[in-house]
Amino acid sequence: MALTTVDVRSSLNVLGRILQWLVVPLAVPVLVALAYGESPVPYLVAIGATLVVGTALVQFERDRIHDREAFLTVSLAWLGIAVVGAIPLYVEGTGVFASPVNALFEGMSGITTTGATVIRDFDAHTQALLMWRQVLQWLGGLGVLLLATAVLSRLSVAGAQLMETETRTKDVTKLTPGIEDTAKLLALVYLLLTAGATLVLLALHLLGLAPEMTAFDAVAHALTAIATAGFSPRAESVGAFSPAVQWAVTLFMIVGATNFVLLYALLGGNATRLRRSEEFRFYLGILGAGTLLIVGLLIADPRFTADPETTARHATFQVASIVTTTGYASTDFNTWSAAAKNVLFVAMFSGGMAGSTTCSIKTLRWLIVTKSFWRDLNVSAHPRSVRAVRVGREVVGEDTIRDVYAYTLVALVIFIVGTVLLVADAERVGDPITEFEALSAAASMFFNIGPAFGQAGPYGTYDGFARTSKLLMVLLMWVGRIEIIPVMVLLTPTFWRRP
Amino acid sequence: MALTTVDVRSSLNVLGRILQWLVVPLAVPVLVALAYGESPVPYLVAIGATLVVGTALVQFERDRIHDREAFLTVSLAWLGIAVVGAIPLYVEGTGVFASPVNALFEGMSGITTTGATVIRDFDAHTQALLMWRQVLQWLGGLGVLLLATAVLSRLSVAGAQLMETETRTKDVTKLTPGIEDTAKLLALVYLLLTAGATLVLLALHLLGLAPEMTAFDAVAHALTAIATAGFSPRAESVGAFSPAVQWAVTLFMIVGATNFVLLYALLGGNATRLRRSEEFRFYLGILGAGTLLIVGLLIADPRFTADPETTARHATFQVASIVTTTGYASTDFNTWSAAAKNVLFVAMFSGGMAGSTTCSIKTLRWLIVTKSFWRDLNVSAHPRSVRAVRVGREVVGEDTIRDVYAYTLVALVIFIVGTVLLVADAERVGDPITEFEALSAAASMFFNIGPAFGQAGPYGTYDGFARTSKLLMVLLMWVGRIEIIPVMVLLTPTFWRRP
Ligand SMILES: [K+]
Ligand SMILES: [K+]
Repeated sequence: MALTTVDVRSSLNVLGRILQWLVVPLAVPVLVALAYGESPVPYLVAIGATLVVGTALVQFERDRIHDREAFLTVSLAWLGIAVVGAIPLYVEGTGVFASPVNALFEGMSGITTTGATVIRDFDAHTQALLMWRQVLQWLGGLGVLLLATAVLSRLSVAGAQLMETETRTKDVTKLTPGIEDTAKLLALVYLLLTAGATLVLLALHLLGLAPEMTAFDAVAHALTAIATAGFSPRAESVGAFSPAVQWAVTLFMIVGATNFVLLYALLGGNATRLRRSEEFRFYLGILGAGTLLIVGLLIADPRFTADPETTARHATFQVASIVTTTGYASTDFNTWSAAAKNVLFVAMFSGGMAGSTTCSIKTLRWLIVTKSFWRDLNVSAHPRSVRAVRVGREVVGEDTIRDVYAYTLVALVIFIVGTVLLVADAERVGDPITEFEALSAAASMFFNIGPAFGQAGPYGTYDGFARTSKLLMVLLMWVGRIEIIPVMVLLTPTFWRRP
Repeated sequence: MALTTVDVRSSLNVLGRILQWLVVPLAVPVLVALAYGESPVPYLVAIGATLVVGTALVQFERDRIHDREAFLTVSLAWLGIAVVGAIPLYVEGTGVFASPVNALFEGMSGITTTGATVIRDFDAHTQALLMWRQVLQWLGGLGVLLLATAVLSRLSVAGAQLMETETRTKDVTKLTPGIEDTAKLLALVYLLLTAGATLVLLALHLLGLAPEMTAFDAVAHALTAIATAGFSPRAESVGAFSPAVQWAVTLFMIVGATNFVLLYALLGGNATRLRRSEEFRFYLGILGAGTLLIVGLLIADPRFTADPETTARHATFQVASIVTTTGYASTDFNTWSAAAKNVLFVAMFSGGMAGSTTCSIKTLRWLIVTKSFWRDLNVSAHPRSVRAVRVGREVVGEDTIRDVYAYTLVALVIFIVGTVLLVADAERVGDPITEFEALSAAASMFFNIGPAFGQAGPYGTYDGFARTSKLLMVLLMWVGRIEIIPVMVLLTPTFWRRP
């Protein structure tokens, strides 16, 4: 294997299969269009395009999919689905989607579960288009779940293999042999949770606790809540709904960013593994600390005069929304104090648990960083005391620690470079942005969160950025979502030749 | 050794010795005061204070100075000298120094070679005070040189030991046995370079190329250029002098941030080691790339209309000033385009070569990060190809790579936390700052550079920040200058007890 060049044909073959399969999710907006008396043509065009290209690619012979072929396939898949996702938007061509760059931005934002939108006027678009964005994100959540379980863990990308160790997938594997079966189980959990979230939202409506919640809205938000994705067919995002809905969605987001192996155990009646998970406690700790901090800052802000329940709700919702990288808004947090906005900004770097639909750096990596740095400090004080770093009962290998540090550092470096490029590009086109707009937009794109601060705030739009900036953002979303390494590996000359 | 508690008495004993020695540098402003007919009292008060406290501390019995005692001593020394450095400023009490926080800020900025100032009106202060600031910085440069050679390398702080390996101090050690002798040699190099810089500046004046350059100015700037420290007795910094002076100072800054072991070899007629140093080439590459980038951005900026020599000079000067962490200004780069300012901001994270007077993360660490991440990408593509990371001919151990990653990441995290605290504190006192002001001020403090952007720009002042913010900055300067670990180690409970 290592003595051959990368097998591009096999990778293209798999890509072709994936593109063919896109017919299934694309059937949803066709049905919605028919139900609402809208034109299904944009989705039929996309179906035609993905079938033609997919079938053409499948003609390539499939020989082997090893590490390098997996990296290539993953990179191409996320790019390819983004393009297919963009086709109906551009064909429909209403409002901002008359621009192909805007369509591509929205497609990439969809499949990467980022949730950043260029839409300015939600009423200008069809129900089919609004639902397609939701479906695309649900697909993105599923994709990343399979990616984390079946691909990244095998390729040992920067501690991704620990996701299994920590949560003892070994046990799951004993019950259900093979990675493929684990992936299927987690997909089932994903499906069940989405269905459950839909039912809860519908039940709240039937109980009179969510008057604004239509069946369309219930499905639409369930699709992007469990996926920690963040698109909403409503301009006010979850702020359009009642407090009960906001509390429920807070829970869905937190669940969506919880390790799915633990959720599988929980659904099977085994709550012990979740309770015992050190990463889960760390994740809850970050959510709790962030919420308390925001509550304190909102209370201290004389311009913010809500009652205690509202304060607690918005603080909990927004911290969960950012930490889980969902990106929904329950209120326009862009109007909060600079300190509160900075806390949310820092929360962008967290992410939820590994092995979930979450994006960003993830709590597992931060836990390893924290524990190993604390270990190093202790070793500095007592050089002869050599201690291993443990997460739960598992020892984390020193190579893994190094990889986790490297991953986190490289992520921060790319984020900083992205910020500078956004500032420079905005200045170039004569429409300067503030440093905070650039910082938060770069972080929001690269960590697949969605909203930023300033013009791209929760109730704003990314349409105002220069076309070149939006293309840079497409790149950031793509590289960030598939955990950097698969794309960066493609840049090494040795990837393309024999070792 | 490891079975006992930390020996606080021994650490205090060494601190006492250091404080006693401060009498020597404090004699300089006394002489300046006498020469200019100013009052020497503030400096005599400081001499008295440091002698009394130093002599009291020396009464503690000195038993052993091992790793933990070294960390404690280093932390206490930089804090202690900052306080002693502040005494004359506060006693003199002119202008901004009527505030003890301001005096402490300036003292810490001095000894840490940061070069950030709270001074608003340079004419309001005595020549003695202005020279004392310079002397304090020169002392800070010497201190860090000794720290890097004799202490941090021995304690293996985050790759600091590589400074020796890379530059083959082993050879030097062969010639001159013992760390102490190496330290003495490097101190001699430091002294010679400072003297050389003084003579060059005086020569430029005598040749008519530097009409503004007095003997006082020549000494003052030589003291803080080789120390990559950045204080100037002039409000316009090096912008007060002729182009010839600015080019010369550019060279001094670059030399000051070059590994002193290599400079020692160079002064001994051996240029080969400098030429062969991979880190030196990397360092020059960063300087060159940064300069080209700034030149391009200045040319592209319609508001910047200087001739080619001026453009090249300011670009070279400011990039060198920031990369070497000196912090001088040849012009008000605060008025440059947002893109150019962002490039300078990113340059703050570089620093010069390990084993020099430079601050920030340093080129050695970035070189190791770059090479090892590139190695990791190649290994991702070809898992069976295990390759060692080399700097020059030396293999960098995997533990060292991990430490370097950890150090760099923790530095970035502290910088981000510092930024948020500055934003929150400014908002608290009702005097909000922009995110870019906070970011650049936090980076400038923690990486000991000096100027930032906005109110604390090169021709601005840090006086406008809230008192609490200034105390936070004192903390950032302190922790950053002694490379984080010595202070953070003190926070672990095991530091204070038996292992
Ligand atoms: K998202
Ligand atoms: K400096």
